[in-house]
Amino acid sequence: MSLIVHKYGGTSMGSTERIKNVAKRVAKWHAAGHRMVVVPSAMSGETNRLLGLAREIQDQPDPRELDMIAATGEQVSVGLLAMALKAIGVDAVSYAGWQVPVRTNSSFTKARIEAIEPERVHADLEAGRVVIITGFQGVDPAGNITTLGRGGSDTSAVAVAAALGAAECLIYTDVDGVYTTDPRIVAEARRLEKVTFEEMLEMASLGSKVLQIRSVEFAGKYKVKTRVLSSLTPPDIPVEVEAQSGTLITFEEDEKMEKAVISGIAFNRDEAKITVSGVPDRPGIAHQILGPVADANIDVDMIIQNASEAGMTDFSFTVHRNEYEKALAVLDAKVKGPISAGKITGDPKIAKVSVVGIGMRSHVGLASLMFRTLSEEGINIQMISTSEIKISVIIDDKYMELAVRALHKAFELDQPPA
Amino acid sequence: MSLIVHKYGGTSMGSTERIKNVAKRVAKWHAAGHRMVVVPSAMSGETNRLLGLAREIQDQPDPRELDMIAATGEQVSVGLLAMALKAIGVDAVSYAGWQVPVRTNSSFTKARIEAIEPERVHADLEAGRVVIITGFQGVDPAGNITTLGRGGSDTSAVAVAAALGAAECLIYTDVDGVYTTDPRIVAEARRLEKVTFEEMLEMASLGSKVLQIRSVEFAGKYKVKTRVLSSLTPPDIPVEVEAQSGTLITFEEDEKMEKAVISGIAFNRDEAKITVSGVPDRPGIAHQILGPVADANIDVDMIIQNASEAGMTDFSFTVHRNEYEKALAVLDAKVKGPISAGKITGDPKIAKVSVVGIGMRSHVGLASLMFRTLSEEGINIQMISTSEIKISVIIDDKYMELAVRALHKAFELDQPPA
Repeated sequence: MSLIVHKYGGTSMGSTERIKNVAKRVAKWHAAGHRMVVVPSAMSGETNRLLGLAREIQDQPDPRELDMIAATGEQVSVGLLAMALKAIGVDAVSYAGWQVPVRTNSSFTKARIEAIEPERVHADLEAGRVVIITGFQGVDPAGNITTLGRGGSDTSAVAVAAALGAAECLIYTDVDGVYTTDPRIVAEARRLEKVTFEEMLEMASLGSKVLQIRSVEFAGKYKVKTRVLSSLTPPDIPVEVEAQSGTLITFEEDEKMEKAVISGIAFNRDEAKITVSGVPDRPGIAHQILGPVADANIDVDMIIQNASEAGMTDFSFTVHRNEYEKALAVLDAKVKGPISAGKITGDPKIAKVSVVGIGMRSHVGLASLMFRTLSEEGINIQMISTSEIKISVIIDDKYMELAVRALHKAFELDQPPA
Repeated sequence: MSLIVHKYGGTSMGSTERIKNVAKRVAKWHAAGHRMVVVPSAMSGETNRLLGLAREIQDQPDPRELDMIAATGEQVSVGLLAMALKAIGVDAVSYAGWQVPVRTNSSFTKARIEAIEPERVHADLEAGRVVIITGFQGVDPAGNITTLGRGGSDTSAVAVAAALGAAECLIYTDVDGVYTTDPRIVAEARRLEKVTFEEMLEMASLGSKVLQIRSVEFAGKYKVKTRVLSSLTPPDIPVEVEAQSGTLITFEEDEKMEKAVISGIAFNRDEAKITVSGVPDRPGIAHQILGPVADANIDVDMIIQNASEAGMTDFSFTVHRNEYEKALAVLDAKVKGPISAGKITGDPKIAKVSVVGIGMRSHVGLASLMFRTLSEEGINIQMISTSEIKISVIIDDKYMELAVRALHKAFELDQPPA
C-alpha cells in the first residue's frame, strides 16, 4: 500500500495504442494495492508541432504565450490516459498543473517549481482513484501557465513524488536503466542496480541522457527514491519483478556502493575547445575573457588556465559545438584587442570522456589509472578537469570510442562489483 | 473608444497565415481607438482531431476528460493570436476560460455559462492590451475544465460581451451576413441589415446555420448587440466600413423592422417524419409515445396530433434524420404494444420550410399566402406548425428548392423593405 509515482515519456504516450498499454501497466500497480499517481509527457512530436506553429507566427515567440500553447500537449495526454484507465475499469482523474496546483515562479519556458499542494491529490487517492498530473508545467503567482522547459516532465514527476511523500518515483524510458557506459559503444557495458544521485548528476550532464538533470537535482534535494526502468517490457509482467528492474537512483550511500569505486564512463562530442594564448597573467583576466562570452549567452563548460611563464599564460575553455563560431567571433571582436592577447585558436573536433564514481572520494590512484590507460592507447590528453566524483579529459574526437572502451575495461566495469 | 468583442471561427484561425490576418484586423480596430477583446475558436480540424483521439481510447469518452482534451484546441488558438498581435507591435494577452474566469455549471461537454468575472480583463484593457479569451470553455465550481459543446465559441463571445458591457459583439464568419434565404437556392436572396434576435432564433434553429442558437438566446437575454459579418474581406478595409457591414442582430424592434413583415425563409432536410396511427385518444397518450423516445435521447422537433374520430387519433412528429431508424425501433419495441397503436409509419424524405418574421405578430393573412403559394406550385403540405413569428410546413423533400424560391418571391423578399 505504498504511494508510487509513475512517469511516462512522449514515446510511451506516442499513440492511443501505446496509451492503452500505459493504462494496463498503471492498472497492474493499482491492482497490487498501491496508491498511484502518473505524470505523462505530451504525445511524441506534439510539443515540436506546437513550437513549430508558434515560430511560424513569431521568430522569437513571446514566452508567456509559448507556455500557454506548449502546455496543451500534456493536457491532452492526461485526459487520454484517464480515459484509457476508465475504459478498463479503473477510476481515474486528470489534472493540469494549475489544478493541483503545481506552483512555479514566473520564468516562462524555464520555470522552477516552488510548491505543490498535495491535498486535492491525496483526497482522490483516498477515494481509490488513480491521479494523472500533467508533466512539464505549473501556474505562477499571477495565475499564468508556465512550463519547466524541455524534459521538464521528469522534474515534475520527482517534484510530485516529493510533495506527496511517495515511496518511489518510477521513470519509464526507452532504456532499461543506467549503464556503466553506452552499450552501443562498449558491448560489455553493465546495467547499474543502484547509483547515487550525485553520480547520476555527473552522468546526466556528461551525456548519458537518461534523465533530465534538474529532476536528478530535485531527487537529491528532496531525497526521492527514483528508479529509471524500461517502458518496453510487456505491461503485464509481475509488479514485483518490475519493481526491482532498471536502476535505482538513491541518496543513500550504502555498503555496496562504497565498493564500486567507479560507476560509469560518460562521454560526449557536443563541445568545442577554444584557447586564448599569450594572455597577460594579471588579476581579472578570466573575467575579461569570459565576461563577453557570458554576455552573448554562451554557456562555458570546462575552464583551464595554465601556469604562467614570463608573465604570460594560456587560457582555454570549452563551449557547445553549436556555439563555437559565435564564441570565436565574440572573442575576436570584444576580447582580443582589449587584453592584447597573442592568438585565439580553437578546435571543434574534440570529445570529452569522464570517469564518474562516488567511491572516488575515498580512493586514490584513479586519475593515474585513467591517464595511463589513455597513454597506452596512444591517445593524447588535451585538457583535464576534475571534481570530487569525476575526472574529465578532452581528447581528439576520433579516439572517443577507443578511449571509452579502454577505460571501461581498465576500471573493470564489465565485472559486477565484488 | 468603445469596448468591442470580436469572435473568429475555426476557418479564420485555420492556419498561421490566417491567424496573422486576424491579428491585422484586430490591430486595425485597436488602432481606431477601441478597447478590444477577441474570442477565437480552435484551428479548423483541431477539435475533430482531439475527439478522434478520445474515441480511439473510449467508445463513449468520459465527459470530464473529454473536456480536458477538447479545451486545448482553443488554448493553442489564443496563444498563437496573442503572438501574432505582438509580432505586429500590439500588446496582447491570452486567457483560458479558467483564467478569466468564465464560470460554468458542471455539465461536461454541454456546460452553461453562469458568470464571467470581468475585473482581470478590464485591467488589461485599461493598460491598452488586446485581451484574447478562449471560446467554448470555462471552469466549474470544483475547478474542472468544462466546454460548452460544439459551436460554443459564439456563445462565449456573446457572454463575454455581456459581462464586459461591450458596445457590440462582432461574429466573423464565412458568410457576409444573414440572408432572406440561402443565396445558393434563391439568387435574389438579400442580405438583411438588421434582424431581431427572436427572428434569428427561428432562423438558426431552422437551418440557417450562421450562428449557434445558444449565442442568440444569450444575445437576447442580455441585450448584446451582435453583428454577423464576413471574415473574408481584406483585413485592411476601413473600420467604419466594416462596422456597418454584415447583419446586426438587435433586441430593439425599431420602425424599420415593423415594416418588414417577413425576414426570411428558412429550410432544412435534416428531419424525418413519423406517424403513429390508430392511437386511442385518451389522456397521457402523448407522453406514452414520446416518453420512450426522449429516454432514448432522441430529440423531437415538430409534434402534431390531429383531432380524433371515433376515439382514435393519429400522432405525428419529426426527429433528426440520423435518428429516424433508432426512433422507429424504439416505437416498435416500447410503444406499439402498450398503447395498442394501429400502425407506425414514417418518411425520411421530407423537408421543412418556414417563413420567419417578427412582423407576423401584427399581420394577418401570411399563412394563407404561404399555403396558396405552395398550392399554386402543386406542392402538398404534409404537416403544419406555427409559432408567434414563424410558420413551418413539412413537404416532400424533392420540392424544397421550388418551395423556397416561390415563397421568397411571394413574400417579396427580393425587394428591400418599403
